[in-house]
Formats: sequence, C-alpha cells, structure tokens
Amino acid sequence: MSTPSLRVAARSMKALTPTLASLKTSVKDGALAAMAQALRQNAQSIAEANQKDLEEAEVVGLEKPLMIRLKFQGEKIEGAAQGLEALVRLPDPVGRTLSARELDQGLELYQVTCPLGVVAMIFESRPDALVQMAGLALKSGNAVILKGGSEAKHSNRLLADLMLAAGVKAGLPKGWLHLAETREDVKTLLELTDSVDLIIPRGSNEFVQYIMKNTTIPVLGHADGLCHIYVDGNADVDKAIPIIVDSKTQYVAVCNAVETLLIHRDIAPFLLPPLRMAMEARAVVLRGDAETRKYLPTIEEAVEEDWETEYLDLILSIKVVGNLDEAIGHINTYGSKHTDAIVTENRSTAERFMSEVDSANVFWNASTRFADGFRYGLGAEVGVSTAKIHARGPVGLEGLVIYKYKLYGKGHLVAHYSGSDPKSFTHRELPLTGGHH
Amino acid sequence: MSTPSLRVAARSMKALTPTLASLKTSVKDGALAAMAQALRQNAQSIAEANQKDLEEAEVVGLEKPLMIRLKFQGEKIEGAAQGLEALVRLPDPVGRTLSARELDQGLELYQVTCPLGVVAMIFESRPDALVQMAGLALKSGNAVILKGGSEAKHSNRLLADLMLAAGVKAGLPKGWLHLAETREDVKTLLELTDSVDLIIPRGSNEFVQYIMKNTTIPVLGHADGLCHIYVDGNADVDKAIPIIVDSKTQYVAVCNAVETLLIHRDIAPFLLPPLRMAMEARAVVLRGDAETRKYLPTIEEAVEEDWETEYLDLILSIKVVGNLDEAIGHINTYGSKHTDAIVTENRSTAERFMSEVDSANVFWNASTRFADGFRYGLGAEVGVSTAKIHARGPVGLEGLVIYKYKLYGKGHLVAHYSGSDPKSFTHRELPLTGGHH
Repeated sequence: MSTPSLRVAARSMKALTPTLASLKTSVKDGALAAMAQALRQNAQSIAEANQKDLEEAEVVGLEKPLMIRLKFQGEKIEGAAQGLEALVRLPDPVGRTLSARELDQGLELYQVTCPLGVVAMIFESRPDALVQMAGLALKSGNAVILKGGSEAKHSNRLLADLMLAAGVKAGLPKGWLHLAETREDVKTLLELTDSVDLIIPRGSNEFVQYIMKNTTIPVLGHADGLCHIYVDGNADVDKAIPIIVDSKTQYVAVCNAVETLLIHRDIAPFLLPPLRMAMEARAVVLRGDAETRKYLPTIEEAVEEDWETEYLDLILSIKVVGNLDEAIGHINTYGSKHTDAIVTENRSTAERFMSEVDSANVFWNASTRFADGFRYGLGAEVGVSTAKIHARGPVGLEGLVIYKYKLYGKGHLVAHYSGSDPKSFTHRELPLTGGHH
Repeated sequence: MSTPSLRVAARSMKALTPTLASLKTSVKDGALAAMAQALRQNAQSIAEANQKDLEEAEVVGLEKPLMIRLKFQGEKIEGAAQGLEALVRLPDPVGRTLSARELDQGLELYQVTCPLGVVAMIFESRPDALVQMAGLALKSGNAVILKGGSEAKHSNRLLADLMLAAGVKAGLPKGWLHLAETREDVKTLLELTDSVDLIIPRGSNEFVQYIMKNTTIPVLGHADGLCHIYVDGNADVDKAIPIIVDSKTQYVAVCNAVETLLIHRDIAPFLLPPLRMAMEARAVVLRGDAETRKYLPTIEEAVEEDWETEYLDLILSIKVVGNLDEAIGHINTYGSKHTDAIVTENRSTAERFMSEVDSANVFWNASTRFADGFRYGLGAEVGVSTAKIHARGPVGLEGLVIYKYKLYGKGHLVAHYSGSDPKSFTHRELPLTGGHH
C-alpha cells in the first residue's frame, strides 16, 4: 500500500465525501459483504501477519491484557466477518427524513440525515477494532482514517489493504480508507480541523483525555467510567447486594463497572455486614469512610482520592450519606457522567435520582453493566460517549451521521414575505414518507 | 447586582443544574411570563439605561450599524416581551421520550431529553439578544452565562437584574443567570471545560472564529456565511434572475445572502446580459472571471480572493463552470457550509446537488434568504450552526437539550445474560407515550 502523508490523504478524502454521501445502500452493503468475504479468504495470511505482531510483542514484553487483545486469528477473524455482515442487515442511517414541513404552497422543507464526512478512529492493540470501524464508517457513508497501535502494525497493514481493496472493487471511491501509522500522525490528526469531522479515540483514560484536551475537532468517547450505585433507605437489601456484586464483579476492567457505593444512613447497618460477606467471597477489597467503618471496622479507610479513582479492579469504595441530595451531589461532583444506578423501592425517589444525576445512563434497580450498545439493542456500537452534545451514552450508527435541510421551491423569494401585503407561511407538517423522498 | 467572579459563578451554576433539569414546565413558563411583565413594567428605566449607553457610544463614535442594534427602547422592548411570551406557547423541549425499548421482561429503557446544563452566550451591542437568550435557556432548563459588549453595559446590567429577579421570584434557583462583563471573562469562559456545556457566540466572523479556535468546549454557531447559487444549464432564466436578486439584495448584510454565483457555460450567454440589468438597477457591483467577462466585458475582474470573500455588501462574484461537478467542487472548496442553492428545471440534477453539496441548507429553486429559524417554522431560533455534529442549520430549542438513557429494572443482573444457559434480550420497541413517562 502506498502511503501518502496523512495531511494529503485527509484532504483528498474530503473531496470524496460527496461521492460517499450519495452511495446507494446496495453498493455500501455489497462492499460490506465483500469485506467479510475478503477476511475469510485471507484468514491464513491475516493469522500469519498477526503472529508476527505477537512474536514482536513478546520480545518487547507487551503487557498480558494487551497481548490478549492483540491476538486476531481463527474465530476472532470469523467474528469480525460476521460483524460486517450484521451491519448489512441494519437499515441505512443515511437519507432518513427527520422532519418535513410545507413552508408555503410549493415550498417544502425536508430535514434529511447525511454522513458527517471524514471520521478518524485511534485505537491500540485490537486489530478487530480496525475492521469494525471501517464497517461502521462505510455503512454511514463516511471516509475513515484509522490509526492503530504500532504493536499491531503487520495485522493492521494487511487488514487495511484488504478492506480498502474489497471496498474499491465493490464500487467505493479509491482512498475511502486511510491507515495512519506513526505517533506524529496523531499530532497531525488533531490539527486537521478542515478535513476531519469527528475523532473517536479508544484506549487508556489518559490517552482519551489527551485527545479531548488537544483538539477543537469534536471527539466522541469517554475518558473515565467512574460509576456509582446509591442504595436508598427504602431499598430491598436482597435486591441491592446482587446488583452491587454484578456491577462490580461481572467484568471488572470495564468502564461500566461500579467503583463507588453510596449508602443511606438508615440502611447501612443492615446492608453492610451481608455485603461484606458477598464481596469477600469474590475477593473484592472494600474501602470505607469513617461511618462505614463503624459497621465494618476491619476494612481499609477510603480517602478523598478514592472518590476520584476508577479502580478497574476488585476494589470498591463505600460512603454513607444522609439523604438523596447528598448522594446526587457526590455523584455529580466525582462521577464521570457515564453510568449511575439507584436501588430503592420508592419510585419517586428513583425518578428524582434519574432526573438529577447528570450522567448518560441512569438506572433504577439494575446493574450498571447494562450500559452497552448491544444490550441496549442499538444493533451496532460506535462507542460510549460522555459528551453533552450530539450523541450520549452508547452510540449506534446515528452518531456517525448528521442532517441537512433540503428546501424544494418553485422560484420562491423572501421579498414576498415581507414589506407591505406580505404572504404568510403555512408551516404545515408533511408526512415523513412520500413527497420528495 | 453583586458580581462573583465568572469562575465561581459557573461552578455554583453547575450545582444548580439538577434543580433546573427537573423544573416543572409550569414553573418555567410562569417565569417566562414574569420576565415579560418585568420588561413592560420597567420599560421606562430600561429606555433610560439604554439612552446612557447610546450617549456614551456617540462619544466614542460607535459605528452606525452597531448604534442601530444597540438601541433598545419602546417597541423593541415590547417585541422582546412578546418573544418571551412566544416561548411560553412552545412545547417543553425537556422530558420528551425519543425512544423506548423493552430489553427484557421488566427491564425498560427510555431515551429522554434533558438540558445540556450550563450554556454561555457571547454577543455584542444588541440588548434584545440578552433577553432572548435568557428565555431560550430557561425554557430548555439550562443555567445561562451572558456576556454582552461593554457598549451596552447599562442596558445589560439592568436587563440581567430584571430577568434574574423575575425568574427567582417565579421559583427558579438563585444564580440561574450570570452576566459576565469583562474581556478577561471571555478568556476565562473558554477555559471552563468542567462547568460550561455549550458556547453560543454572535458577532463578527473574526470573533466567532476566535472563539471556535480557542476552546475545547462545544461551540454552536457560524463564522462565515459564504453562500452560492448555481444556475444549471437547464435553468429557467426567468426564475433564476429573481432568485439571484432576492438572495443578494433582500437584506445584504446577513449570513444567508448570496456572495458567489456559478453559471453553467451553456446558459451564461442568455443569463448574464439580463442579470446585469437587474443587478445594476439595484446598484450591485458584479465581479466576473475571464469567461463571464467575455459576455460582460465592462465589469470588474474576479480574482481568487473573491471566491473566499463574504462581502456582506452589494457585490456579487460570478464564475462560469463547465458542469455540475465543477460547481459542487467550487462550493465545497470555498463555501462556508451554510446555504447554497441550485436553479434548474432538472430534478435529478437538483437532487445530486442537494446530496453532494456539504452545507447545512441546500435549496432548489428558492432564495438563499429562506435559511432562517422563523421561516423554517422552528418556533424559536437559538442560532444557525455550520458544525457537523449535534445541530446544523437554523437551530431551535432542540439545540439546547440532549438526552439521557433511563433504565428501569427489577433487580436485573448482566450475569444472567452470559455464561452457560444465558437469558436473551427481547429488544421490543415500546410506545413512546405511556409506560414510565
């Protein structure tokens, strides 16, 4: 694969965006199917390239979790191919009419979804992320810049070549996908305000935070996942303990695992002793504030730093609070606006919690681990966003599109609607189907 | 009015956002009505404060157009009051259910709109913008920081005091509105990434561009409005000329006025002579490329800089192009992604133009001047955005809200949906009304 500089590639990608925006659904779906086929047909060479990466990673002593994510062979390749085929079955997110209004006779306004343009994804280790992101970008009509980690360079190069070629053969314009490889490329990317419309970083908290703080290009994602559970005074202890166990231990190293437990003073003496037993059975270390340690004097002390820490480990910090407002205040101060849950039997308390906690996902009597695009039934997950604009929480394909206003007239002039004896607007809602679309 | 530092005010505003998010519609509408009443009751003192601003502006020699926009007396005050009352009649943008899905029996997911949190508006001269923005923020449940120009300081101080007090009396929390006054405040504002969720700048292109380039806080707005009309070879000349005249001259100093005209080679000899007559009758200066000047040899020459210039004046640059692709290419290169129109009798040409021109508003046989929230029937206009995410084109109240996912369970655990013999999700769509909302 020839590799033009990222700046040059991005500029020519921008020029391709009109073509990508008007691709027929059948062409995009055909390309996705062709990409899946290319993965299967080249499974052997992909496994070999990946083996090279694994061997080189072994030499430099890559950490074990990264090694696991780096491996992309056999079933994982088949899984990636099936992921592309699942995208074929989803409806095209482009060209949907969001609103339709007659402004005046013969003057019709349609708000219609369209691609963002050029999206860039930065990820580490996992070569399957490259395949997934290429598929998501294609289905949504976007050109895509993919920046993988150097530890996966052999895998990524081959995969990018295969995706690009299969797409072009199926009718996509050349250059719809670009693989960026160097660290310098990341810096360049953050400056490409004229040609890149969205950056999706996946990686460590520090890395995502670095991206967010160093570009004016919109970023979709989340740095931290510091999630809370608040057990209200009216909670059912038999419901609370399994929810806490599931939220903490079902998969400990993920953004939607719980890190801090807040407990109403009235229920603390009843909840804490059985909770300790349940958590100790799963090797979870508890850290409590002074009031928690009145009931559990042998556990570690929780300090200010604990409230700010996403452990991603078998550790849970616990704080006793006096009321709902204190719980909400703590979460809005220390939380990461990702996912927070309340356990209570009182509906109005739950409603107030869900209304006032400023997080993307607010749950009542359910595990924080449900915050996920697959479990939500989104069909495909672009990422989980903790931003306050555009898309929030688990984001599906709709996060990769925006809309434009199309106005259909017959020579209409604004002058006729002002001055003396002006015409007036009808502003009549039209059906979303039919009409011009 | 006591004036805490902007940083302190913004932090305490953030703490108010849960309360603002759960305000009842009736409380917000009551506050809007009270604000309108306060304007009417204090019309005299407002006019006096505004007179002081006008006199001081006279002394320092403020430019005429700014003087006109600075004036806020009599009918303009009544107009602002009516604007607030119009907001009362609009539906509450908060608490709308966007999607509802059963994930499994007893486990229901609702995607519900909620306020952004804290929005900041920076404007110059026009005191009515302060009133309008305070109303928009309130209706959408946001706290608001307003930074006006120093030329309107007497008007702004009084208006901010009135809005704040009327709101608090009607049940809003103290500190829901903050007036920022100094230039230093603008710099501070751009750094308040933890407490400000959206910045809406209104002012000169340079000023808006400065804001966009110097903050990682999302910005809603547009710097330039460099709009185009493309007259296709299949255009009706009798439709084209009035559309061009209206787009250029109906109101010349606005973002949706046309600046550059692109003409298909085949129609240039028929369009240009009558166009010149129509434009000269309205004192519009034409600047053409070499091919245009073959037909109109006496007009000024258009140079590269013309394609990049938003004149906001009675000047129109003209370029002859060979085909639709050339027109689209020119617009996507030099345009500002605001509003661009095609004049043609050929529907498929129009559809391709509207699909491939990467602008917020794309029009067929209609004046570019229609790109406006009032004409679109949005009810209220927050601003016109040329961004590619969140909200694009004329933006109504929906640009000041986002959504959160509320999940209602009965003790549901993720562990039950994995491992051996996992439960499966039902992912059944629920009606948007009823259920938990």
